[in-house]
Amino acid sequence: MTGKSVVTPWKVEGTVDYIKLVKEFGTQLIDENLLRELKEIVGDLHLFFKRDYVFSHRDLDKVLEDYLSKKMFFLYTGIGPSGNMHIGHLLPFLFTKWLQEKFKVNLYIQVTDDEKFLFRKLKFDEVEKIADDDILNIAALGFDPDKTFIFKDTEFIGKIYNLVIKTARKINFSTVKAVFGFTNETNIGSILFPAIQIVPTFFEKRRCLIPSAIDQDPYWRIQRDIAESFGYYKTAAIHTKFLPGLLGPEGKMSASDPRSTIFLNDDPETVREKILKYAYSGGGATIEEHRKKGGNVNVDVCFQWLKIFLEPDDKKLKEIKEKYQSGEMLTGELKEITIKKLNEFLELHRKRKENAKKKLDKYKYDGKLAKEMWQKKF
Amino acid sequence: MTGKSVVTPWKVEGTVDYIKLVKEFGTQLIDENLLRELKEIVGDLHLFFKRDYVFSHRDLDKVLEDYLSKKMFFLYTGIGPSGNMHIGHLLPFLFTKWLQEKFKVNLYIQVTDDEKFLFRKLKFDEVEKIADDDILNIAALGFDPDKTFIFKDTEFIGKIYNLVIKTARKINFSTVKAVFGFTNETNIGSILFPAIQIVPTFFEKRRCLIPSAIDQDPYWRIQRDIAESFGYYKTAAIHTKFLPGLLGPEGKMSASDPRSTIFLNDDPETVREKILKYAYSGGGATIEEHRKKGGNVNVDVCFQWLKIFLEPDDKKLKEIKEKYQSGEMLTGELKEITIKKLNEFLELHRKRKENAKKKLDKYKYDGKLAKEMWQKKF
Repeated sequence: MTGKSVVTPWKVEGTVDYIKLVKEFGTQLIDENLLRELKEIVGDLHLFFKRDYVFSHRDLDKVLEDYLSKKMFFLYTGIGPSGNMHIGHLLPFLFTKWLQEKFKVNLYIQVTDDEKFLFRKLKFDEVEKIADDDILNIAALGFDPDKTFIFKDTEFIGKIYNLVIKTARKINFSTVKAVFGFTNETNIGSILFPAIQIVPTFFEKRRCLIPSAIDQDPYWRIQRDIAESFGYYKTAAIHTKFLPGLLGPEGKMSASDPRSTIFLNDDPETVREKILKYAYSGGGATIEEHRKKGGNVNVDVCFQWLKIFLEPDDKKLKEIKEKYQSGEMLTGELKEITIKKLNEFLELHRKRKENAKKKLDKYKYDGKLAKEMWQKKF
Repeated sequence: MTGKSVVTPWKVEGTVDYIKLVKEFGTQLIDENLLRELKEIVGDLHLFFKRDYVFSHRDLDKVLEDYLSKKMFFLYTGIGPSGNMHIGHLLPFLFTKWLQEKFKVNLYIQVTDDEKFLFRKLKFDEVEKIADDDILNIAALGFDPDKTFIFKDTEFIGKIYNLVIKTARKINFSTVKAVFGFTNETNIGSILFPAIQIVPTFFEKRRCLIPSAIDQDPYWRIQRDIAESFGYYKTAAIHTKFLPGLLGPEGKMSASDPRSTIFLNDDPETVREKILKYAYSGGGATIEEHRKKGGNVNVDVCFQWLKIFLEPDDKKLKEIKEKYQSGEMLTGELKEITIKKLNEFLELHRKRKENAKKKLDKYKYDGKLAKEMWQKKF
């Protein structure tokens, strides 16, 4: 079931070879030295480093230098509102939250409603509804309301348009054709869009650090080619892998196939059903076979989810791994553990989401940073 | 001195064959029937019709029907701020003013500062300075301050962006490549731009009539291909020819060659010098030859300007024509007549421009229509 791997901001297919991707994209693996330095500065390391979910970067070392020399830096990330938000969307934001807490820096979150309208066959009002719900899901994570600005492109474009055209003037069709595979059939709004996603890297005259899944990196490659020509920093980036979807380790969790996906608003019963029915298992074909040969944790989606984010306790994870590999733990048991953990995770998230409603305006309009952004001249 | 004719929104070169252009662009010549109907409705005809300067249209007949049936229509035109405004820029606006007076309709004037920034190597602040001066030149003409909205793209984009992406989603690279000759080297901001110039045709759910030089027609062709698919009217248009530049009947007056151009802020002495020195003459090589063979009014730039806009009196124009053709009037005399008329024209314009300063905010922000536009949701 392996195929040719395809990774663009709009498509992730096949078995992703992350080492190859790092080479192709020209990024760097996060090594032990860098991790040690990071730990020295902030005191600890996020689970995602230990669990190999955050794995690659551009100029993270320079970001740390800028932090130590008090030049400082800022964070930027975003989301494309194309459907109900799922757990795969949330993880990079959880990581971003950790970065903001540790470094106490400004964070800009771009909601690319224009992108999703332009690239998908969605109605404008649908995209807006999804975008508003995404913002609430993001606000639920509890970013610093005075250091975080969340904006929808269609709402904020008037403030940043001058930067958009200054950026767009430096990028030609050849470039976006080569980088994103645009063709003569691509619509002219989509063709402009890369400029819009690049612009927030110019929000401050400091180095920008972008935590995001690696499929977004092609934008940052273009940014790095043009940034210095008009007095800005080449952006830094720190990349996450993809969360595997329920159907197996290939591709990424995608909102367009609900069978592969746990949405943030899936109720406990739905979560249970989906995992029991669809979660790709590394277990044996029969109980007998499983008891004899054990399960394969490398392809088992439940185990991967536990590893990446559901079981932070190293000892417990090790125990599960050993029991599953030895055949002592059956697929059904592993699934039940995952269902319980995941439902707790989602339940907590939904409570936080409910509470976030009253803080929304801070992030969008009247927190310290948001207010500054609405008054700023670019 | 004739060459291959090229007509795009960014280049007009060679001897323009207007009959051929009408065929190529798929527009229609304005015929006697249409002129008679127009005259019946509004009482008289603008000089530009009689002098064959306004010559082609799309759906003008339907516009008149909509007017008579009280469905009404609206006017839209614009300017690209690329340098000091010259007399060739002003004429379509004078014609637009006449249309607004006769039909009492709303008029939207788009100042495409983004376009000129994207297509030329100008600095952003330069474009803005030019744009602000253009707006003052336009306001000087005395449009109805409650029925006229003048806006710069970079200032109004936030209000119209949703319409821009809805429009852009319907136009692909193939189309703009074929229509405007864009290439792989065209920057992605320029590639989007046609959507921005099309959007004002959707400002009202009525037929739009665009008075403009014929080189802008390619935009309206695209508009007409997509408008009905999202519930708007195919735009109508009424086209002017190009005002010949000083250097001769080829191409059009262009701000990029000051020797070909009379700018609105050229003082009387400069006007005099330019005309004496550069104005392409249809006269004989020597006085003797001229007296014998007479002058050629078809190529004589001074005569053309008198015909198009400086001498509204048919009888006087006929007299000048006959005297020049017979050799009785020398080139020097024709030039003096033109210098006098042109300096009067410019003097009056500059007085009006000075007075327009206090009305500027009405057109841009707080006249009836402007206020509506800033409050409107698209």
